[in-house]
Formats: sequence, structure tokens, C-alpha cells
Amino acid sequence: MDQFERLRQLPLRDDLRGLRPYGAPQLNVPVLLNVNENTHGVPTDAKEAILAAVAQELDGLNRYPDREFTVLRQELAAYLGHGLTEENLWAANGSNEVLQQLLQAFGGPGRTAMGFPPTYSMYPLLASGTGTGYVAGVREDDFTLTAESAAEQVRRNGPNIVFLCSPNNPTGTALGQDVVEAVYQAGEEAQAIIIVDEAYAEFAQTGTPSALNLLKGRPRLVVSRTMSKAFALAGARLGYLAGAPEVTDALRLVRLPYHLSAITQATAVAALRNSTSLLANVEQIKVQRDRIVQELKELGLTPAPSDSNFVFFGGLENPHEAWQALLNDGVLIRDVGIPGHLRVTAGTEAETTAFLTGLRTFLAR
Amino acid sequence: MDQFERLRQLPLRDDLRGLRPYGAPQLNVPVLLNVNENTHGVPTDAKEAILAAVAQELDGLNRYPDREFTVLRQELAAYLGHGLTEENLWAANGSNEVLQQLLQAFGGPGRTAMGFPPTYSMYPLLASGTGTGYVAGVREDDFTLTAESAAEQVRRNGPNIVFLCSPNNPTGTALGQDVVEAVYQAGEEAQAIIIVDEAYAEFAQTGTPSALNLLKGRPRLVVSRTMSKAFALAGARLGYLAGAPEVTDALRLVRLPYHLSAITQATAVAALRNSTSLLANVEQIKVQRDRIVQELKELGLTPAPSDSNFVFFGGLENPHEAWQALLNDGVLIRDVGIPGHLRVTAGTEAETTAFLTGLRTFLAR
Repeated sequence: MDQFERLRQLPLRDDLRGLRPYGAPQLNVPVLLNVNENTHGVPTDAKEAILAAVAQELDGLNRYPDREFTVLRQELAAYLGHGLTEENLWAANGSNEVLQQLLQAFGGPGRTAMGFPPTYSMYPLLASGTGTGYVAGVREDDFTLTAESAAEQVRRNGPNIVFLCSPNNPTGTALGQDVVEAVYQAGEEAQAIIIVDEAYAEFAQTGTPSALNLLKGRPRLVVSRTMSKAFALAGARLGYLAGAPEVTDALRLVRLPYHLSAITQATAVAALRNSTSLLANVEQIKVQRDRIVQELKELGLTPAPSDSNFVFFGGLENPHEAWQALLNDGVLIRDVGIPGHLRVTAGTEAETTAFLTGLRTFLAR
Repeated sequence: MDQFERLRQLPLRDDLRGLRPYGAPQLNVPVLLNVNENTHGVPTDAKEAILAAVAQELDGLNRYPDREFTVLRQELAAYLGHGLTEENLWAANGSNEVLQQLLQAFGGPGRTAMGFPPTYSMYPLLASGTGTGYVAGVREDDFTLTAESAAEQVRRNGPNIVFLCSPNNPTGTALGQDVVEAVYQAGEEAQAIIIVDEAYAEFAQTGTPSALNLLKGRPRLVVSRTMSKAFALAGARLGYLAGAPEVTDALRLVRLPYHLSAITQATAVAALRNSTSLLANVEQIKVQRDRIVQELKELGLTPAPSDSNFVFFGGLENPHEAWQALLNDGVLIRDVGIPGHLRVTAGTEAETTAFLTGLRTFLAR
């Protein structure tokens, strides 16, 4: 009897039957470019600051943490700027939990969320996990999304929540500010909450604006972020959002009390106070990202424009074979299940070279 | 415009309207006996072990954590014994998240959960947050729950999930094993998942059995635990459960990927490897707990029998006045909203003396 047969004997919720757990394979190979981590690691001074901050929490670890994580919200507001204060900030264990809380507060049975695939594949799963319906919108053939099309689809479907992923995962391209503005307006009748998921915002091309610029006067707009990518803290699990104070009040009604541990709070605060050091390698990652785009084009492939730390590329006849050949060379990238396409994280210069060399060898066969 | 007026302007889920966030007041007074923490703190050797474990994680903190938290599940299984292996174990950020995941997997819209108030007040909130209906059962006048009554109520209501809190919070008394057995059997027709919440199990009176003894052959039975109480790690947020492997497989379908940070996993593993040291003061806490019961009786009050690190007591004419008088003396205890009753955590000997002295002074007025 395998894992999924024995599961069938339990009174599982009907819509979970037959599903498999979400998650990319966790394989142990030399070059890991599959989940868009910051492969440079945490700089020594930031590690020291984090360890010192954790040490300070140990005396009080028998006590419940600050349920309001006030200092963390202050530091996040200072980091984001844009006139935001701790009243505008919220955080949870990864941006997945932030998004789940938004669905719990503004979605749920009888309500729907909308996304525009290919996009972050957790959106429909988070909707399902909170009993929220999910409507899949459509993009242009080149995976871009125009303001007119997005707004028209939102008006037609009337979702309660809209996910706009910018830069979009897995395609890597940022949305224009006009898309966010048009979707916000289109969601007015249904009073939709518009979530702009900016997990990769720090890697944007020069001149690409953040939706943080649009928050003022738009109480239904929310911008979610994470410390997993640019901040190189995927292991620490800290996602956050900026929005109107009433959005954070709504999340207080659905968050589990003390959802953020004292150590998570201390780690994130120490990292934010050392953001200059932690973000120092973002420019190097962008250089490698642009190099990947350039070299893939030279190889005759079709990479999408990237505002993130990864590149989505098409033009492969058999992407799974390419993926396997790279894995055989010790380079793990991501097959996101889109015909003809793969996704690769921009790593260090050496890792990027390993990926490009492996791919070039595969294509030359 | 106050916090709750501005919230009304957002498209909040209907059942959240007018609610206030859950949580006891977080006040800064010298003697905190309100949320059943282990007031002895974390011993020095355990603190050193935790810090060393966290230090080891920093190099890899840019990577996502082990999604399966395998080492942690192994250590939890070793701690619980009873022939359990990592296949039986699951963990999350506090037992609240464990319970939420159980509701997501086995509850949800069209399904119901059942509890027996007065009991842990998060059960109905967790049900609401997952779209699960909630049925409130009844206890005897003295807040006990018999096997016959519990089984009859479960048979009559046919819930999909039953919460049995043992020892019960806020009353402190453990359930007999016969209650768990009878409720499990009564839930057979509805194929109900029976959750025995043993957050305070380590403080049980000698001879009080754990529901861990009953897991074998009962795939619908789940025992939840926490490291917040006996392990003195409320700030680290680590709850866990033991159950059939298929229960953990079900939770894999609803858990957020990477829900447990690398640092949380390392902290909990280090604590479990130092459990002897961390649990050394449990006996002292039990001594103070028994002392509170004894002295409250001598004061003419009616404490409930306690298998936990707190005492629930009645016989007060005006519990809120008593609560306020204690607070004025720098002792914070918990008003759980049950007429004539209060709840106090058993602290150190000095903290317990401060509480008893304050209460005696108040009663003598």
C-alpha cells in the first residue's frame, strides 16, 4: 500500500483527493539554480549581526513573542520608504502565509480570486486551501499582460481578490504601472483586493517602478514582498506586505496569535539593519541575469525580458532532455511545465558559467 | 475614525465583521502568570546548544529549509517514544498552526468541528478561519466530561473533527482514557478525526496516561503537543502532533511549502537534544501548582484538579476585582470570562508566593 492509497482511507476533504504535495524536488547537486534563491549566501557581517540578535532573544524564549512584531514592522517600513509607517506593514512566515491570510480575510467560501497564468503556482493552491474559488485569466501569446486585457478580464469576472505577480514568476517580466492602475479601477465595482506580488522587486531593471508608488489613495491595493530572494534569507521565512492600515487590521482577525517567533523577528530585524551588506550582491546577480539573457539569445533561444533574479526561456525542442542533461552535469534548473520552456536562477558568475556551458554542450549535440 | 470603523470600508469576509483580534493583553508587569508560560526560563546549557545550532544554519540561510524537516521529526519521535517514528510526526509554527492544518485537511466548508467549552478558545476561531462549522458540546456543572456524555454528544452531532483538550485549558484537568476511547468509537460512523490536544501533558499528575498510548490501531486519532510549555520555548513557536502516517500525508497537501524555517527547525532539534535540562524544572512547577491548589482550598476557594502548569479556581464573588487587585500588586493572571473564576499559571516559588500573598490580601479586605 503506497502513500496515496493509505491516504484514501482517511476522511480527507474532497478537493484534496488525488493531489500530490506542492514543491520543487530538493536534490543535492553542486549548482542549485532551481528555486530562485540568492546563491551568494549571507555576508559575514550580517551573519554575525543575526547571531547576536538571536542570542539576545534566548533569555526570554520561554515567553510568547511580541504578537504585534512592532520593531520588525518599523524596520520594514524604514526599508521600503515611500512614506510608509509600521501601521502599513504586516509580516508572516514567508509571503505564502501573508497571501494565505489575505485570502482568509477577503476570500473564503463563495468568493473568488483571480490570477493570470503562467504565474506563481501557489495562487490556486492558496485559494483552494482557504475555500476560495479561483479564476485563471489569460495572457498574450508572449506571456505579457496588457492593461486593457487585464482590466477587461477583471471587470468581466468580478473576482474579490486579484493576484498580479510583478515581476512575474516564472516569466520574470515586470508589469507596467498602467496594468496595476487599470486593474485597481476595474476591481472597484466588486471592491476587489488587488495584490501585487513583488517578491523579486529588488532585481528590477533600472526605471521599472514598484507598485509601492501607487499605494497612496488606494486602500484595496496591497504590495507583498519577501526576504527570501534579494535578502538571501529563504531559510529564515519572512514575507511581508505594505498596504492601508485597515488591511493590516483585517489580517489581525485571521492571523494565528504569535505566528512570528521571537527568533524570526530578531533575525529579520538584524537583517534589515544590515540591508546594505545583504543587498550588496544584487547588482552582481543582475549582471549575471543580463548575461544569461544575452547568451541565450546568441544560442538562438528566446529568453523573456527579466526584472528578477531568474530567466525564463523558450525555443527548446525538448526542455526535459535539456533539464536532465544539465542535472547530469550537476546543474539543477526548473522545469515549470510550460511546453518548450525552462527557468534558471541567475547565480554567481561561476554558477552561471556552469549553466551556460552545460546548455551550450547539450545544444551542440 | 477608529481602527474598526476604517476596517468596515474594506470587503472583509462577512463572518469577520465586528470581531476583535484574539489574544491576552501583553502587559509589562513583574510577575506574569497569565498565559501558562514556563517562567523558569531556558537553562544556560540549552541556550548555548540552541545558539550553536542556529550558528550552524547561517551559512545556508540563503537556501530554502528542508521542507520535510526530517531531523526534527526524528527527534520528536525519539522524545515521545511509544514506538513512534518520524513517519508519525508532524510540526508547525505553534500547535495553532498544526490544528489549522488539520482543519484545512479534514474540515472546511460543509464540515463541522466540535469542542467542549469551556475549552481552548482558539478552536472555534480556527474553525471559522478555515470555513469549518463549529458545534459547542456541553460539560458537567463542575466542568468535567464523562465518556458517556461525550460519546453521546459526538454520536448525536456527527462532527468531522473533535477537539479533546487534555489537560483541558482553562480548567486544567486531564480527561480519562475512557473518554478518548469512547469518543473515538462514537466518531466511527462520521469517520471523525479525533484530536487530543495535550499541550500541557508533561505536567500531568503521576499516573495520568497520555493518549499516545491509544494511537496504535486508531488511524483517526491525533495527539497534538507543543514546545511552548514544559520546554519553555513559547517564543520559538513549535507545535507538533503524532498520528498515523496517512494523517501526516494529508497535512503535506495543505501545509505551505517550507512553513518551518531552518532556524526554527535547528532551535527545536537542539532543545530536544537537551530535553533533560529543559524539562528539569517541570517537577518544581508541579510542586507550586499543587501548592496553589492546596492554599486556595484553605482560602475557601474551589480550585479544579490540575494536570497542567496552571490552576483554574472558582468561589470568587468578583473575579474581575481580584484580577485588578493582583495586577495593582504587579501580578498578572488570566480572566477567562467564566463567572466567578480566574486562572493562574504556576510560576517559580517566589512568583507563586507573590500571587498567593496578593490574593490573600485582597480576600482579607
